[in-house]
Amino acid sequence: MFITRRKNLFLLPDCFLIYKNKKYMKLRIGIIGAGPSGLAQLRAFKSAEKNGEEIPEIVCFEKQADWGGLWNYTWRTGVGKYGEPIHGSMYKYLWSNGPKECLEFADYPFDEHFDRPISSYPPRSVLFDYIQGRVKKSDVRKYIRFNTTARWVEYSEETQKFTVILDDLVNNRTYTEIFDYLVIATGHFSTPNMPYFEGIENFPGTIMHAHDFRGADQFKDKNVLLIGSSYSAEDIGVQSYKHGAKSVTLSYRSNPIGMDWPKGIKEVPLLTNFEGDIAHFSDGSQESFDAVVMCTGYQHKFPFLPDEMRLKTPNCLYPNNLYKGVIFNEFPRLIYLGMQDQYYTFNMFDAQAWFARDLIQGKIPMPSKEERLEDIEKWLKRSTANQTHDDEVDFQTDYVKELIDLTDYPEFNLDAVAKLFKQWLKDKDEDILRYRDKTYRSVITGTKAEKHHTAWLDEMDDSYERFLAETPELEKA
Amino acid sequence: MFITRRKNLFLLPDCFLIYKNKKYMKLRIGIIGAGPSGLAQLRAFKSAEKNGEEIPEIVCFEKQADWGGLWNYTWRTGVGKYGEPIHGSMYKYLWSNGPKECLEFADYPFDEHFDRPISSYPPRSVLFDYIQGRVKKSDVRKYIRFNTTARWVEYSEETQKFTVILDDLVNNRTYTEIFDYLVIATGHFSTPNMPYFEGIENFPGTIMHAHDFRGADQFKDKNVLLIGSSYSAEDIGVQSYKHGAKSVTLSYRSNPIGMDWPKGIKEVPLLTNFEGDIAHFSDGSQESFDAVVMCTGYQHKFPFLPDEMRLKTPNCLYPNNLYKGVIFNEFPRLIYLGMQDQYYTFNMFDAQAWFARDLIQGKIPMPSKEERLEDIEKWLKRSTANQTHDDEVDFQTDYVKELIDLTDYPEFNLDAVAKLFKQWLKDKDEDILRYRDKTYRSVITGTKAEKHHTAWLDEMDDSYERFLAETPELEKA
Repeated sequence: MFITRRKNLFLLPDCFLIYKNKKYMKLRIGIIGAGPSGLAQLRAFKSAEKNGEEIPEIVCFEKQADWGGLWNYTWRTGVGKYGEPIHGSMYKYLWSNGPKECLEFADYPFDEHFDRPISSYPPRSVLFDYIQGRVKKSDVRKYIRFNTTARWVEYSEETQKFTVILDDLVNNRTYTEIFDYLVIATGHFSTPNMPYFEGIENFPGTIMHAHDFRGADQFKDKNVLLIGSSYSAEDIGVQSYKHGAKSVTLSYRSNPIGMDWPKGIKEVPLLTNFEGDIAHFSDGSQESFDAVVMCTGYQHKFPFLPDEMRLKTPNCLYPNNLYKGVIFNEFPRLIYLGMQDQYYTFNMFDAQAWFARDLIQGKIPMPSKEERLEDIEKWLKRSTANQTHDDEVDFQTDYVKELIDLTDYPEFNLDAVAKLFKQWLKDKDEDILRYRDKTYRSVITGTKAEKHHTAWLDEMDDSYERFLAETPELEKA
Repeated sequence: MFITRRKNLFLLPDCFLIYKNKKYMKLRIGIIGAGPSGLAQLRAFKSAEKNGEEIPEIVCFEKQADWGGLWNYTWRTGVGKYGEPIHGSMYKYLWSNGPKECLEFADYPFDEHFDRPISSYPPRSVLFDYIQGRVKKSDVRKYIRFNTTARWVEYSEETQKFTVILDDLVNNRTYTEIFDYLVIATGHFSTPNMPYFEGIENFPGTIMHAHDFRGADQFKDKNVLLIGSSYSAEDIGVQSYKHGAKSVTLSYRSNPIGMDWPKGIKEVPLLTNFEGDIAHFSDGSQESFDAVVMCTGYQHKFPFLPDEMRLKTPNCLYPNNLYKGVIFNEFPRLIYLGMQDQYYTFNMFDAQAWFARDLIQGKIPMPSKEERLEDIEKWLKRSTANQTHDDEVDFQTDYVKELIDLTDYPEFNLDAVAKLFKQWLKDKDEDILRYRDKTYRSVITGTKAEKHHTAWLDEMDDSYERFLAETPELEKA
């Protein structure tokens, strides 16, 4: 649609120039969210600029006071300082649950940031530092308006522009901006799914969603029930064990996680109801608990979008209606980043952002709606064939490969990353308490990760300083 | 503005008819929120209808799945089933902290609902039942669209109409409605104020705002720190004491609550910072805690309104810019109900709703902007003279009186209610643990409240059934 329209106007040397009222105007790009996806989009444009391309006018809006999205830890739960729902779902003592070699930026390797090898599973603060290193280097902070949330978006077919109503939270002031493209980079691990269980309203202890979990120390000597069987349940379970919970019980709906759990962690089938502090399960067993954490997943939620622009999808590897996983088919100037369920993370967001950039820049032609639909259906059909985690890894590897092939994002050996993912799945299955002590080799630089100075299970300090310190000195301290 | 414009068109017999495209059209009234204020507005119109008036077309939008606002208890915290910020701030075992005789509806006395005298301080479920009795009787549920939240509002000076974008949460569908008047009845005890204290990010125990407090049983045998010195701190403190907290510490900023606290509750000055689980206070004292509850108040928050329509006010007895405490002076078709700090509650909302109704119905003329401003300033000036709680009671009594005098809301002896408030303040000061055992006489019906079968401090069951049951049978059980 965009390409056609441009041709009808003028053949301009730079795709981002449009002719209006006898003035050449730069395209305007709005990005909502300055987490890993939004920052990838900013970085993608800066990379093009560095290569001599002229880039559009860009504004990025971030609800939080700082960048980093989920990686920007907050002690707050519920709503933030200005009454907006809290974005962050991370907790104290969170360590990466996948090897850093699987998420390495191809254009900013770990070696460049840390100047020496580090271990494969760093804590949150260390990964956050890494994310920040790249964006600080490329000077993109100036594009971001912090403490600003999008309230409402309208699209005009006539002008092909988006009107976005923003709320400047600090000044309690709303205002409007107009954009040619809108990039939705708000993530989808912020709005909890929290099902009702009969009797839960009378449970006397703590009830929370994993989204509001801020650290396992509050569960010391407690009997904790975790509902769910995905990453949150697995990690909060192991965290609670590590930090001294009296017992950890995981309740699954369909299938148990099935790890070789240590004494103190067990799995039980579906919770049916509560009676006071007693939980009943579908196998007839029952037990009393001090706390319940619902690890029941997240919703894709876009309250600022009219429903015809909303991505409506469960958490899956290929959300429907997104061409190449990013272009909303009904409104191809509406771009969604990082909305897939994820094996790949940072480098997949990069691949998506580079692809979106080149579509906007006109370097990749936008196919017709029908062609886009055909491509979407091809991927959707393939995704139905995924049976195992290994299939899913291969599926997402091929998806990321396709995007990278289309742009100048630095090539790297994605088959090697896929192998790492499969090894990681095995390592986790073999020893859920010790898989974070494993090390891998970087696909980008060939550097072998260093063994961390302390075994993960014994490491109670997740600070950046402690992680990067030399072992012996600290051990003595 | 409205009156003038009507005169310029036609002199119509009924103020709610306007002439457009040669058709007579009913005015359309949008109400946002079906809590006590929104329900009062619905009830006000139904009362006019019963008296033979024709009433406008009304639609009320309620975010929650049921009516009652704050009184509709939820076990959820943070965000609700559909990811919207939770409205409710009530908890298990919440009993009215003021005598029911101070909030009695003049047009629906407690006697009519319960058919026999009940005690003066009922639990939440009993008061909720009472609120519902009146609205069930007047058949207003049909006006309410539940699970529906307002996303954005625009006002057109040209048409003098509000365009409201609604989000049907169950169906994930947005749509637009046009209204001549918009009534904001969303309350202001839902969006927490939560200040930062140095070191709080490393506090190992539970941290929550009073908004997320759902019952004191989780604090059994715990050392609890409550930050604040208003109603929430007072009541959550006493609740925690009653339900077995090991110790309760209240930290005040300016002045202590100053009650004669029992052993186990104490007041300390301002919290300065945390070191691990240790809180430091401005008098140099320090103590370790298991949990922190911030009783630090609420923000007025209207994310769906452009800022020129937003009421921007702290919690006070007379928010600026509201004529008669309800009409937003800049946009007099924008009505705010219940935005004051409150001694009076249900019956004040009624007085406001009846007044707003009669302005809309044209039975009360709308003064000019300047006249409204003058009236606002008169009240603001008077409010600055308030020194004591008794002054505040008198101030709000006079405010409610003035509204009631202007409408056909049933007259009742407001001076007698003011006396009750002052007595209540004394009773609370005298014995914070036992003031709820006192009984008062209804100003509406003259009925003396019955002494409750169990002293509040011994009553651990706050259910409707238990409250209304005859004593001896239950005591035996």
